Amino acid sequence: MTNLESYQSAAQKAQLDALVLVPGPNFARALNGTFMQHERPLLVTIPAQGKPFAIVPNIEMSVFNELGFTGSVFDYTDQIGYQGAFDKAFQQTDFQKIGVEGLNMRVFVDQAIRTALPQIQIIDAEKIISDLRLHKNEQEVESLKKAIQISEEALALTLTQLKLGMSEKMIENLLVQNLFKLGAQGLAFNPIVAANTNSANSHAHAREDYGIQSGDTLLIDYGCVYNGLHSDITRTFFINSATPEQEEVYHIVLQANLLAHQNSKPGVSAHSVDDASTKSLEQSKYVNRIRHRTGHGLGRDVHEAPYIIRGNNQILEEGMVYTIEPGLYEIGNFGVRIEDDVLITKEGSVSLTSFSKDFTVLQVS
Amino acid sequence: MTNLESYQSAAQKAQLDALVLVPGPNFARALNGTFMQHERPLLVTIPAQGKPFAIVPNIEMSVFNELGFTGSVFDYTDQIGYQGAFDKAFQQTDFQKIGVEGLNMRVFVDQAIRTALPQIQIIDAEKIISDLRLHKNEQEVESLKKAIQISEEALALTLTQLKLGMSEKMIENLLVQNLFKLGAQGLAFNPIVAANTNSANSHAHAREDYGIQSGDTLLIDYGCVYNGLHSDITRTFFINSATPEQEEVYHIVLQANLLAHQNSKPGVSAHSVDDASTKSLEQSKYVNRIRHRTGHGLGRDVHEAPYIIRGNNQILEEGMVYTIEPGLYEIGNFGVRIEDDVLITKEGSVSLTSFSKDFTVLQVS
Repeated sequence: MTNLESYQSAAQKAQLDALVLVPGPNFARALNGTFMQHERPLLVTIPAQGKPFAIVPNIEMSVFNELGFTGSVFDYTDQIGYQGAFDKAFQQTDFQKIGVEGLNMRVFVDQAIRTALPQIQIIDAEKIISDLRLHKNEQEVESLKKAIQISEEALALTLTQLKLGMSEKMIENLLVQNLFKLGAQGLAFNPIVAANTNSANSHAHAREDYGIQSGDTLLIDYGCVYNGLHSDITRTFFINSATPEQEEVYHIVLQANLLAHQNSKPGVSAHSVDDASTKSLEQSKYVNRIRHRTGHGLGRDVHEAPYIIRGNNQILEEGMVYTIEPGLYEIGNFGVRIEDDVLITKEGSVSLTSFSKDFTVLQVS
Repeated sequence: MTNLESYQSAAQKAQLDALVLVPGPNFARALNGTFMQHERPLLVTIPAQGKPFAIVPNIEMSVFNELGFTGSVFDYTDQIGYQGAFDKAFQQTDFQKIGVEGLNMRVFVDQAIRTALPQIQIIDAEKIISDLRLHKNEQEVESLKKAIQISEEALALTLTQLKLGMSEKMIENLLVQNLFKLGAQGLAFNPIVAANTNSANSHAHAREDYGIQSGDTLLIDYGCVYNGLHSDITRTFFINSATPEQEEVYHIVLQANLLAHQNSKPGVSAHSVDDASTKSLEQSKYVNRIRHRTGHGLGRDVHEAPYIIRGNNQILEEGMVYTIEPGLYEIGNFGVRIEDDVLITKEGSVSLTSFSKDFTVLQVS
């Protein structure tokens, strides 16, 4: 089966007349192509029955033609605008109910389809579509490993460049330079470099006006893209010294991280991995510092299924990849998170991340 | 007026019950905040009458609290999910018709609002909302200038690092490293580095398997982010030698670029800038190599209003910023694009870009 055929089967199974893909992680898997998503809509529609068709801005046609897409293509110029292409493409169909990527398609594309076919029912089929990415193939795993290797080397290099008084923003900038120097093809997201009380914001922004000091917690959460696959790693360090509280919290988070690893194997649910890890945090005296679930899937998107959260009955299977990232955070004090990327194997799981998780007091001058 | 008040006025003028902002360029202008947009929706709703309210994932609350937002906040945990917060937030209103950012809001957020209020009418108010960003203030212009300065220095440095046989991807990687080394806070987009026939793809992707050779056209289109503002610059060079055709095409594109500059002043329409520039391309013998409009607005987003295209009657005013980027492309042969960023002033316009546009044959060994 080519990749488009798997979407056709998925549309049939879900009793949808078609699935629509826009540039992003699913499009990249299905068509091996990436396109900018600005004001010029581009999409590929895979009907449950019949041939796929595409709507493509004329300016992207020469690159789109290289994908080997065999369906019909409705292109449009900037001058004419896109609605005519939507009308022509969708009015030739008898679609009544179609599925789209809710997390990725923007409202103006949804509205252009509705303008062409006012009676159409548009369903958020994100889960149906993205579930086709749940199992990573060998090439995807190799790319993930490469993204992780680049990331770990970049972090190691960055740690040697730290100086007291260096701003979080400067450390972020050095880390980004090191990622690209070592072969990154993009950033998974803007790195989180958070020191002192900022580490307690689980999604902190690096500050320009805070320089790292002895005694600081330093939390670094970052990743890169290689061949379209994303790494996502967090390590938490301490600068020159740490209090008994910092050390104790670190070990409790590490314990939760290890429990999630131990519980990661085929046949168990995403629920049970989160439950084992979170329960250990809940049983500590820092229970009120819990802010989030244990993790999320990782692949062509940096957040994807399987979400490692209580209540998610998704059974883990060989080839699934996700993050294990328990954390504890006290606003105004400090936060600790330790994040690995894990691959479910035939027998159990392997950590793709190998950067040391030992409690580490960095010597910085 | 604070920034949120300008959205309230815009909602009133457009006879909408509210405008909804999600993280992105408008949100950044309105609230001076940036958030990751993954599977956890975050939004701020500004009603035409009454107080604004927000829906915020619990994991983002500590950072959201720093924005000084004074309306009510409906937060939700990963465990509980977001629909309950949408129900509570929207069912307390009597909204019948609201406006959203069509280019930015994703379908699952639109559907969460419709689930809370099934009768609601959701309008694409992208133009109404984004038009509030049309006029750049002094601080935004300063940030744009800084983004452009970093970009131009990074390009100059990259040109000194070129070697024959270097892949497009490697040149892209060096350019990105140089951007961050010189202070970039992000990439405006993945740079286009396109040599030889690849330069004819107006939105080309850098190749790993093509090394630059003497006689190549080398087109570089790139930009960076500084304080949330984007630069966007293209220069086209020739490696060691150029044919009379390459030189002639270059001068025709340069002429179109200069005509767009000359026609850029307050009181004229976006149409007339594109028309003057495109007409000069149409009158050349390379008329069939035209692929796109002259330019697009530039600011907190890398593509925004005013779009410099025939048919757009938007009158240019002091404080507007846009790209001037005419190009000519022949598939299988080569392409040339020359892109500047221009600011409309009280009297006329100034080019924010100052990198040389002289026809340049680079000496590369």
